[in-house]
Amino acid sequence: MEISARNGLKGNVADVKLGEVMASIKIEITEPGVITAVITRESAEELDLKEGDEVKAIIKSTEVMVAK
Amino acid sequence: MEISARNGLKGNVADVKLGEVMASIKIEITEPGVITAVITRESAEELDLKEGDEVKAIIKSTEVMVAK
Amino acid sequence: MEISARNGLKGNVADVKLGEVMASIKIEITEPGVITAVITRESAEELDLKEGDEVKAIIKSTEVMVAK
Amino acid sequence: MEISARNGLKGNVADVKLGEVMASIKIEITEPGVITAVITRESAEELDLKEGDEVKAIIKSTEVMVAK
Amino acid sequence: MEISARNGLKGNVADVKLGEVMASIKIEITEPGVITAVITRESAEELDLKEGDEVKAIIKSTEVMVAK
Amino acid sequence: MEISARNGLKGNVADVKLGEVMASIKIEITEPGVITAVITRESAEELDLKEGDEVKAIIKSTEVMVAK
Repeated sequence: MEISARNGLKGNVADVKLGEVMASIKIEITEPGVITAVITRESAEELDLKEGDEVKAIIKSTEVMVAK
Repeated sequence: MEISARNGLKGNVADVKLGEVMASIKIEITEPGVITAVITRESAEELDLKEGDEVKAIIKSTEVMVAK
Repeated sequence: MEISARNGLKGNVADVKLGEVMASIKIEITEPGVITAVITRESAEELDLKEGDEVKAIIKSTEVMVAK
Repeated sequence: MEISARNGLKGNVADVKLGEVMASIKIEITEPGVITAVITRESAEELDLKEGDEVKAIIKSTEVMVAK
Repeated sequence: MEISARNGLKGNVADVKLGEVMASIKIEITEPGVITAVITRESAEELDLKEGDEVKAIIKSTEVMVAK
Repeated sequence: MEISARNGLKGNVADVKLGEVMASIKIEITEPGVITAVITRESAEELDLKEGDEVKAIIKSTEVMVAK
C-alpha cells in the first residue's frame, strides 16, 4: 500500500516520551531527501520563492506521523 | 521572533509550481537534523517505538510551511 | 450555522480517555457516507487514482474534531 | 510498514477532480469502523462527552490522505 | 450542534478567490477574543511562555475553516 | 526570516497549562486583523461565500502555533 503523503524522511528514533494521551517521538533523520510544501500562491509570491533560494521547511510536531 | 514549531529543516528550493490559489514548492533538504513527531501514546505503544528503531517521518504536503 | 469542513461522519462515543491537556475520543461510526480528500495533483497521478479504486482514507487523530 | 495514523477507513473512489496543483478525491466509505479524535480535555469536558453519546466526527478535507 | 474546535473568530468576508479545486477566503475579524494554542510542553518551556507575554498566534491558511 | 503562514494575530498570553507532553496556551488577541482560510471551492460555493458575509473563522487548537 502506498500513501499520498509526499514526505517520508528516513531516520532513527532518538527519544520517546510518553504522556497519558500523547507521546513525543524524536527522529534523527539519516536520509534528508526532498520535501514538498503546499502553500498559498500568495505566500509563494510574497516570499518571492524561486529555484536555488535558501529556505527552511517548517512543520508543527502534531503534523508529523511515524511509520515503522 | 522564535516560533513554537519544533521542526525547521534547512534546504534549497528545487522547484516552484504555481496554481491559481495554491503553490507547490519542492525543497531539497541540506541539513537533516532531528524531527519531533507528536502522536497518540496508543500509536507509540502499538508500533512499539523505542530508541534506535528505523522509522520514517511522514508529513502531508499541506502541513509544511516555508520560511525564507 | 454550517461549517466548510467537508467531512462529517455520524457515530457514537465508544470511549473517552482524559489526559491533563488532551483527550482521546473513540467514535464508532454508524453512517459511513462519503469522505473528501484534498491531496496534491502529483499524488493523485502517482497513485493513478480513478473511479472505483479500492483505497483507504487515512487521517491523523489530531485532525479529527467532535461535534455534539 | 505500519503508520501511526489511527484512522484508516476503507472505501472506493467515487470521483477525482484535478486542479493545477491540488486534487479532490471523493471516497465512498464501505467499512465504517472506529475513528479516534484527539481534542483538548477542555473541549471534551465542555461537550460533556461520554460513552454512548451521538456525535459527529468532523474532518477538514485537506487533512485526509489516500492510500492505495 | 457544538463543535470541539476551541477557536471561533467572528468577522466579515473581505475577499473570495476561486481556483479549480481550492478557494481562498479573506475574513476581516471584527471580534478578536481568545485563541487557544496546543503546542508541545517543550516548546512552551523553550519560549518560556508566561501570562502577559506579547506573542503572535500563527496559523497556516489551510487549517482555517469557515462557518456561516 | 519570514514565514509562509498567512495568519499572525498579535496578543498577550492569558494562561499557560502544562501537561506531560503537551501544553495549552490561551492568547488574548489584541489586534484582530485579517485571516486567510483555504477551503475547497466546493465548500465556498455551497456556503455561497461572498464579500460582506458574516462568518466565523474556525480553527482547531492543535493547529495554532505561538511566536514570541
